[in-house]
Amino acid sequence: MKALLIIGDGMADRPLKELGWKTPLEAANKPSMDHLASMGVCGIMDPIAPGTPPGSDTATLALLGYDVFKVYSGRGAFEALGWGVEVAEGDVCFRCNFATVDENLTVLDRRAGRISNVDASKLAESLKKVKAPREDLEFFFTNTVQHRAVLILRGPKLSAAVSDSDPETNGEKIKEIKPLENTPEAKLTAEVLNALSQKFREVLDGHPVNKERVACGQPPANFVLFRGAGTLPKIKPLSELYGIKASCVAATSLIRGVCRAAGMQLLEAKGATGTPETNYMAKAKAAVQALENNDFVLLHVKAPDVSSHDGNFKQKVEVIEKIDKMLAYILNKVDLGETYLALTADHTTSCITGKHEGDPVPLAIMGPHVRSDDVKEFNERACAKGGLGRLRGKHLMPILMNFLDKVKKFGA
Amino acid sequence: MKALLIIGDGMADRPLKELGWKTPLEAANKPSMDHLASMGVCGIMDPIAPGTPPGSDTATLALLGYDVFKVYSGRGAFEALGWGVEVAEGDVCFRCNFATVDENLTVLDRRAGRISNVDASKLAESLKKVKAPREDLEFFFTNTVQHRAVLILRGPKLSAAVSDSDPETNGEKIKEIKPLENTPEAKLTAEVLNALSQKFREVLDGHPVNKERVACGQPPANFVLFRGAGTLPKIKPLSELYGIKASCVAATSLIRGVCRAAGMQLLEAKGATGTPETNYMAKAKAAVQALENNDFVLLHVKAPDVSSHDGNFKQKVEVIEKIDKMLAYILNKVDLGETYLALTADHTTSCITGKHEGDPVPLAIMGPHVRSDDVKEFNERACAKGGLGRLRGKHLMPILMNFLDKVKKFGA
Repeated sequence: MKALLIIGDGMADRPLKELGWKTPLEAANKPSMDHLASMGVCGIMDPIAPGTPPGSDTATLALLGYDVFKVYSGRGAFEALGWGVEVAEGDVCFRCNFATVDENLTVLDRRAGRISNVDASKLAESLKKVKAPREDLEFFFTNTVQHRAVLILRGPKLSAAVSDSDPETNGEKIKEIKPLENTPEAKLTAEVLNALSQKFREVLDGHPVNKERVACGQPPANFVLFRGAGTLPKIKPLSELYGIKASCVAATSLIRGVCRAAGMQLLEAKGATGTPETNYMAKAKAAVQALENNDFVLLHVKAPDVSSHDGNFKQKVEVIEKIDKMLAYILNKVDLGETYLALTADHTTSCITGKHEGDPVPLAIMGPHVRSDDVKEFNERACAKGGLGRLRGKHLMPILMNFLDKVKKFGA
Repeated sequence: MKALLIIGDGMADRPLKELGWKTPLEAANKPSMDHLASMGVCGIMDPIAPGTPPGSDTATLALLGYDVFKVYSGRGAFEALGWGVEVAEGDVCFRCNFATVDENLTVLDRRAGRISNVDASKLAESLKKVKAPREDLEFFFTNTVQHRAVLILRGPKLSAAVSDSDPETNGEKIKEIKPLENTPEAKLTAEVLNALSQKFREVLDGHPVNKERVACGQPPANFVLFRGAGTLPKIKPLSELYGIKASCVAATSLIRGVCRAAGMQLLEAKGATGTPETNYMAKAKAAVQALENNDFVLLHVKAPDVSSHDGNFKQKVEVIEKIDKMLAYILNKVDLGETYLALTADHTTSCITGKHEGDPVPLAIMGPHVRSDDVKEFNERACAKGGLGRLRGKHLMPILMNFLDKVKKFGA
């Protein structure tokens, strides 16, 4: 037996007046999702806890079976892992942005005009040569896509309990990084980061790439914003927890990082972009193929979340219909006598608020021996009447793994 | 007000092709169970946690209201208690088997040809005289039924964190007992057990009973296997928690042990065997009678679990129908104006896998003041639509005890 978990990022929503008080899932034409719900057992699920809006990292961790209230240790490490950067225990990791600031350190553009990969690479090469602010410290800096970059601090006595330098909106001043705990480690880490920030600024300020950018009317990338300090969570890999081989098909680096932290193999799907224009079928094919030599495959589609953050409910409906066609391919290709298929969202993202919300998400599980129920449609309200009742995100994985005979009995 | 809790061991199941994709509970003709569901309020219940297959001991502990993740301390003590052996705090208890081994300590028969009680008693008498491997230690050894026996270690610095010597299958070598924790207590306990094992072997090897067995062509009981190390769980008895008098009608020693650990009185029912051929009506009569001078009675029927482990779905349906007749007698005899009746299973046992599974179990509670719902049948899928929603096993007891006005208000 195998299991495929399909996650539509932010696919759940609240009813919208513009859709006749339906949610996008209720408004979409999605025969394959409804087939899955009809054949399977349905329910609703609080990814983290009722009323608590999950982050994308915590939601995915929870859906992989981890208790995020116990293990979550910030976003930074996932972001680094997702970009293929090696992270060791104790490393403090940050997401970074190349940004444009004025002489008063007011942020003019948090993305430095969405600087090209070429320019960012050249700047990053120079930053890598900066001497660490302390002898017992190492740092690793690497640009990823456009203005995005990753910073890792390695050394004794570091802490991830530090604030961001990123003010989050243009027009505000850079923030001094502060310790968030009254510990020597947090104080030291904040000091080191402020010093490194200043050193980076000095290198970037007179850098030839930036001089050229200014000459061409482009905003200089003269500052690096640090945010989202995090360490590797102390979690056991899925292979150890359940004795399974697990892989993921996901384009988003954050999700890839979470999956890598869980010991999953990261697969590539050509044309998978994490946008509404992603290559849905390439992802479906990669997932179906992965089922051949994996026990568990996670197929993550970022697109519905993107539409929701933009408040673009029409696009969200279209994206759901594209995911439905992707599911049709999967239903046609996998051995349904040997495979459990689960479909859900990692969280509700509201097209009205444009934010992650704490509402539960719909869940449907189809497979050889599920106790199917009367639910005929896959959406928030229909699934609430299903045979699974209301679950927490962290329970999904044990339920799937139990169908695969991979959960140890507790007791004798 | 009084409460009777009827537990069909492993009675819940998954849909079976051979039963037209019904579960045994869905396939059985069981008018009394359906009556109870119709009159009462129903739900589904995760005995321990969603997706986690419970043991019989942990499931029963949970249904008695205890948080097994906090209090469970192994099977051994329950087994000893269930046989009427006294267990003190700190004692480390084991289930034992008289077994037959060859000169290389390969197990030929884990049950020594299901040795008679008479022979086992004689051997046990000799083993009781063995000198403990350490001066500050005492041990108690007693045979129970056929090849089964119980060992208790008593003394300072002992631990239940030790492995089994039982290899679990015939044809494999005896396992050396190892500490499962890096503590002096676990190391000492493992040493003591290995030494005791050797001493037992020396006594058994040349024992007249075994010489006689060999002469008659019977396998000698020349080794004692130790397994399932456990201590008494640190739990308060039901009498203290709820101020009630509680009794149980159960044939299985493990269940009897759990009930004794919870401070319940163990009742006898003539012909109750823990098999599908048990005397159902004798158990019903014992339970009805017990309600006269108890607040809470647990009536446990092992039979459906036995059929499930054998994959015998036809027998499971028949067993359920016999339990239904038992319930008919109870419904007819108890004062329904003064009694809450709860019916459930301690876990799902699948006739397909032959194992305990992590799927939820159905639950129905009938009584004077329950908020009855629309559920008309007692089975896994019907109860999932009930008014109780999806509960955890540990919540059942407070719900029942609250109907009996035995739960203290939390807060003012």
